[in-house]
Amino acid sequence: MRFFSDNAAAAHPAVIEAIARSNHLDTAYDGDALSQSLDRAFSELFETDVRAFWVLTGTAANCLALAALCPGYGGIICHKDAHIEVDEAGAPGFFADGAKLMLVDGPGAKLSAESVDAAVGEVRKDVHQVQPKALSITNATEYGLVYSAAEVASLGEATKRHSLNFHMDGARLANAVVSTGASPADLTWRAGVDALSFGFVKNGGLNAEALILFRTELADEIAVRRKRAGHLASKGRMFAAQILALLENDLWLDNARSANAAAQTIANAAGERLIYSVEANEIFVRATAAEAESLRAEGFDFYDWGPDEIRFVTSWDQGGEPVDQLAAAIAAL
Amino acid sequence: MRFFSDNAAAAHPAVIEAIARSNHLDTAYDGDALSQSLDRAFSELFETDVRAFWVLTGTAANCLALAALCPGYGGIICHKDAHIEVDEAGAPGFFADGAKLMLVDGPGAKLSAESVDAAVGEVRKDVHQVQPKALSITNATEYGLVYSAAEVASLGEATKRHSLNFHMDGARLANAVVSTGASPADLTWRAGVDALSFGFVKNGGLNAEALILFRTELADEIAVRRKRAGHLASKGRMFAAQILALLENDLWLDNARSANAAAQTIANAAGERLIYSVEANEIFVRATAAEAESLRAEGFDFYDWGPDEIRFVTSWDQGGEPVDQLAAAIAAL
Amino acid sequence: MRFFSDNAAAAHPAVIEAIARSNHLDTAYDGDALSQSLDRAFSELFETDVRAFWVLTGTAANCLALAALCPGYGGIICHKDAHIEVDEAGAPGFFADGAKLMLVDGPGAKLSAESVDAAVGEVRKDVHQVQPKALSITNATEYGLVYSAAEVASLGEATKRHSLNFHMDGARLANAVVSTGASPADLTWRAGVDALSFGFVKNGGLNAEALILFRTELADEIAVRRKRAGHLASKGRMFAAQILALLENDLWLDNARSANAAAQTIANAAGERLIYSVEANEIFVRATAAEAESLRAEGFDFYDWGPDEIRFVTSWDQGGEPVDQLAAAIAAL
Amino acid sequence: MRFFSDNAAAAHPAVIEAIARSNHLDTAYDGDALSQSLDRAFSELFETDVRAFWVLTGTAANCLALAALCPGYGGIICHKDAHIEVDEAGAPGFFADGAKLMLVDGPGAKLSAESVDAAVGEVRKDVHQVQPKALSITNATEYGLVYSAAEVASLGEATKRHSLNFHMDGARLANAVVSTGASPADLTWRAGVDALSFGFVKNGGLNAEALILFRTELADEIAVRRKRAGHLASKGRMFAAQILALLENDLWLDNARSANAAAQTIANAAGERLIYSVEANEIFVRATAAEAESLRAEGFDFYDWGPDEIRFVTSWDQGGEPVDQLAAAIAAL
Repeated sequence: MRFFSDNAAAAHPAVIEAIARSNHLDTAYDGDALSQSLDRAFSELFETDVRAFWVLTGTAANCLALAALCPGYGGIICHKDAHIEVDEAGAPGFFADGAKLMLVDGPGAKLSAESVDAAVGEVRKDVHQVQPKALSITNATEYGLVYSAAEVASLGEATKRHSLNFHMDGARLANAVVSTGASPADLTWRAGVDALSFGFVKNGGLNAEALILFRTELADEIAVRRKRAGHLASKGRMFAAQILALLENDLWLDNARSANAAAQTIANAAGERLIYSVEANEIFVRATAAEAESLRAEGFDFYDWGPDEIRFVTSWDQGGEPVDQLAAAIAAL
Repeated sequence: MRFFSDNAAAAHPAVIEAIARSNHLDTAYDGDALSQSLDRAFSELFETDVRAFWVLTGTAANCLALAALCPGYGGIICHKDAHIEVDEAGAPGFFADGAKLMLVDGPGAKLSAESVDAAVGEVRKDVHQVQPKALSITNATEYGLVYSAAEVASLGEATKRHSLNFHMDGARLANAVVSTGASPADLTWRAGVDALSFGFVKNGGLNAEALILFRTELADEIAVRRKRAGHLASKGRMFAAQILALLENDLWLDNARSANAAAQTIANAAGERLIYSVEANEIFVRATAAEAESLRAEGFDFYDWGPDEIRFVTSWDQGGEPVDQLAAAIAAL
Repeated sequence: MRFFSDNAAAAHPAVIEAIARSNHLDTAYDGDALSQSLDRAFSELFETDVRAFWVLTGTAANCLALAALCPGYGGIICHKDAHIEVDEAGAPGFFADGAKLMLVDGPGAKLSAESVDAAVGEVRKDVHQVQPKALSITNATEYGLVYSAAEVASLGEATKRHSLNFHMDGARLANAVVSTGASPADLTWRAGVDALSFGFVKNGGLNAEALILFRTELADEIAVRRKRAGHLASKGRMFAAQILALLENDLWLDNARSANAAAQTIANAAGERLIYSVEANEIFVRATAAEAESLRAEGFDFYDWGPDEIRFVTSWDQGGEPVDQLAAAIAAL
Repeated sequence: MRFFSDNAAAAHPAVIEAIARSNHLDTAYDGDALSQSLDRAFSELFETDVRAFWVLTGTAANCLALAALCPGYGGIICHKDAHIEVDEAGAPGFFADGAKLMLVDGPGAKLSAESVDAAVGEVRKDVHQVQPKALSITNATEYGLVYSAAEVASLGEATKRHSLNFHMDGARLANAVVSTGASPADLTWRAGVDALSFGFVKNGGLNAEALILFRTELADEIAVRRKRAGHLASKGRMFAAQILALLENDLWLDNARSANAAAQTIANAAGERLIYSVEANEIFVRATAAEAESLRAEGFDFYDWGPDEIRFVTSWDQGGEPVDQLAAAIAAL
């Protein structure tokens, strides 16, 4: 029973079916009807005109956005535990021509307007120091916390104060939407977000993520950068098909609801052992090496996060028995 | 009836089935059993130890290879009509840190050892001029010609003479293998090729290409560069599955045979109109604007290549009627 | 007697004196009084508000300008024999994040509006091909020709037509100003030039060139890029001092007049042997290998340009005897 | 009386004279006799064969070295207060193709083998995290401390353990040599250093620094990178002349001795107010805003380093009265 990562889960059957259905000759790249319909689909979802691009990975979505939002000589403020800092092999520096990540600390991988203000304040305003040009946050965060719409808006105001562009890594946006109950619009552009990496792969998708531009004037540049980075696949309809299948009838929200609910079940069992509040689909638990070993002996697979810390991640397809078994096993430690 | 590009064709049903079959929870990235088996599968095919990576597009395969084969301050000799020069949005410069393409002319997008010698000879050996560090050829070429094993070997000797690394863009390698009758080994590493972009998407694949390293010591660097470029997708098994499905029972060769045969049918009909010898699955035909219009009126879709030049590309799934109809239509012009 | 390159000449004594005079403790970088006065000095010279930066080499001036005028995913149209293409070791690709030089031919390394129109016209307007974003010309050209103010203006109109930014490599701007009789303003911003590399080192300077921005809103970016490229030297006053010494009493024009006059003397002697019209301080002469050898035997040093082609370059300090001797020697061939 | 920075001091008269002396026509770039003699001069100084390059700034020396010692996808371990991190506008990321600085803390901007071991240990050995490939230290440090030969050697051993290349920023190497009494060889290559930025500009030079390669096989690459970054000035002899003038009769050591002695005079006066041990030519002093103001009112110029912290830097030409006056003023606070 794997609780290692939602990355590793199966794609939803509707996604596989959508791929099969779109498997016919059509215009290459993103000239097909499905790809062409993404702008409209996401514009409806976000209640405003957006430009939407399928890309093949979250790293690509994040770093294409950052490249458009920050010049190579600028800095991107982010949490020190942000995925772009610790898990993307330096891709922001690659895509954004050497741009520098400027690291900020804060509990649960969350930033606050105050911490952004402080980070900006520490930089001398001269040509010798890299000047921040963008802010990037992750919602839900790398520790399974969520930003409310008000929290994002507070950060959005900070970006206005400091003339920063604003990127959100929404690899687990679905979990954040379900958890906060906020609308996608309130969690993003109404709060000041300029570009969003909208994750599908951890939530039932196969290999298509979306990059959403609320500043639509960036679209031409992103289209070129996507091609230039080798992310303009020729059979694009089969990426668009996945995304549309997940948007249809809010399947993406159902999937996230299922993962979040599974996480709550485990969280309830973990009780005092929880390191962070469980607000999405990640559960960080205090457990000795012996306890971790005993859980593994019972057939559970998970990540050793640090000394006496383990991480479980639930997926869209993990409701029911395995979750209950894990909850019971943790409760019995 | 579309003869626009093999890029736009459907994936082979076996590929879709393989994806569906691999759609279960497994280790993420390329830690799964299918991804792990690629080295062995390609080592058998190439009759030597190779390292094989799935990547998501041909541009990524080409440019990751070039980044490992040429420093940013070096030059890559290629044909002036090479895909990396005219159709990848400057991706070689992006992936390879500003490396410069050094363009060489030659009929049918083919290079010869002589043209490579001449290109090297024109460069002053000083720090003011970019020094060539790599050679990249495309087989089959962008004009549907093929390099024989002997021709590749002759270029391989040129690379030795000039201390160049050697890359082959094999977006249509299958068509070249079928056309020449040479073994994959003879067409590549035995002829001196260091790294190969092995195309599947134009030949029945969905969204997985392979990057093959004959110099296996480059594998660690390529693995990092792939991640850093956002090309390490999390559900990697579904990329590996596609490739393995096409390798199984030589389906990739059957597909290419079908496309090449269709091209021959059309070539025979075109006769004197042919601009280049038809050796793979592309047919370049002289036709006036009026003739092109009349073909379009009959329902054929194709690319206007230049003044009075049109291009047809056949695909693995285009045997039979549409091809015969096109042949007849061309013959009737 | 060296006619190899104006690069190798001595600095004017006034420049050395100015360095010595500025050799006292002052604010570092460009905070000193001399550096701060450059904007005003060049604004007067160009009869408009400009921003002026000292930089240490012409390559830096050119490539910092290009980096601000062309995004990494764009193209820079230039002559195939432009210094930025053949003599800067790929620096444009380095400074401008992989931007691509798009080469145009034309006699004497000169471009025309027609050739720029044609170059733009050849590019497909899609994401697969690099789109031109800037034009760079050299005045005087690498073959010693000059663009008149009208010719620059014609190119400036072409840049407007195609939404290109416009850079001028003025490594030998002084020679062009003297040769055309045009004002610096007419040769540059009034003709549409956005940024100018203003050469001093070939014309009596020691190690300071100037980068002039007619679009002053680019100044902040250039200031950062200069630092980031290691071109913000700490004792900046001694760079500014050189430039101001050459501007004072039009010493820069006197120097260029001297070099141009020397070139005319040699050109008159060469007569029919001239390959290009001599309009600045470079003389390209047809001469057999034997003739070249005989000139060398007489003590003249110069560059073998190609088969039966040799190049002489005159410098600000080369009036009088050596020039007369060379003229006589050429006439006697 | 300025104690703001050694950056701003005058050049030594011998340097100006050397420039004037070399101001004659000679081979351009680094083909002249002076430039050609640098390898020998530094090889003698370092008691081993080295390759030496003049460059125009310390940022260029540092970042050219780092570009050769670390691939773009790698990391460079350095102190969080290192000049390359806080004062070079992101130049390491620019020169080294996006390479990432991996920051380590430690008192006085010094690293220890233990802190390097710990930094390496924190990195997961996978493709998702940037892997360290180089170590860079500054000697004397940004806080005026020095590494002894033994301390450098201990770090050198750490680099061997972790397969890191080893760079030393010696912007104030002279001060460290004088302070430790160690030989240049013992402080650098005998302790494992691969490449050294050898500072002259803060120590009596005008605008020439040296980049010393102990791994001479890197020389060809550095030569190209220097040109490509616009740091191959055409009148190179006047850079080499400066360096040779400072090496002659150990003028560079005399200069550093003078600056260090001045710093000791001030340090003795500061006594308990010292924040760091004064081992080179920088003095960090605790002083209230009112005390700082009173010093300024007496005519002293210096840097406000932080709350209640001020920094003085002494220069080669600052012996005698101003130093005694400052010492007295501090003692009188």
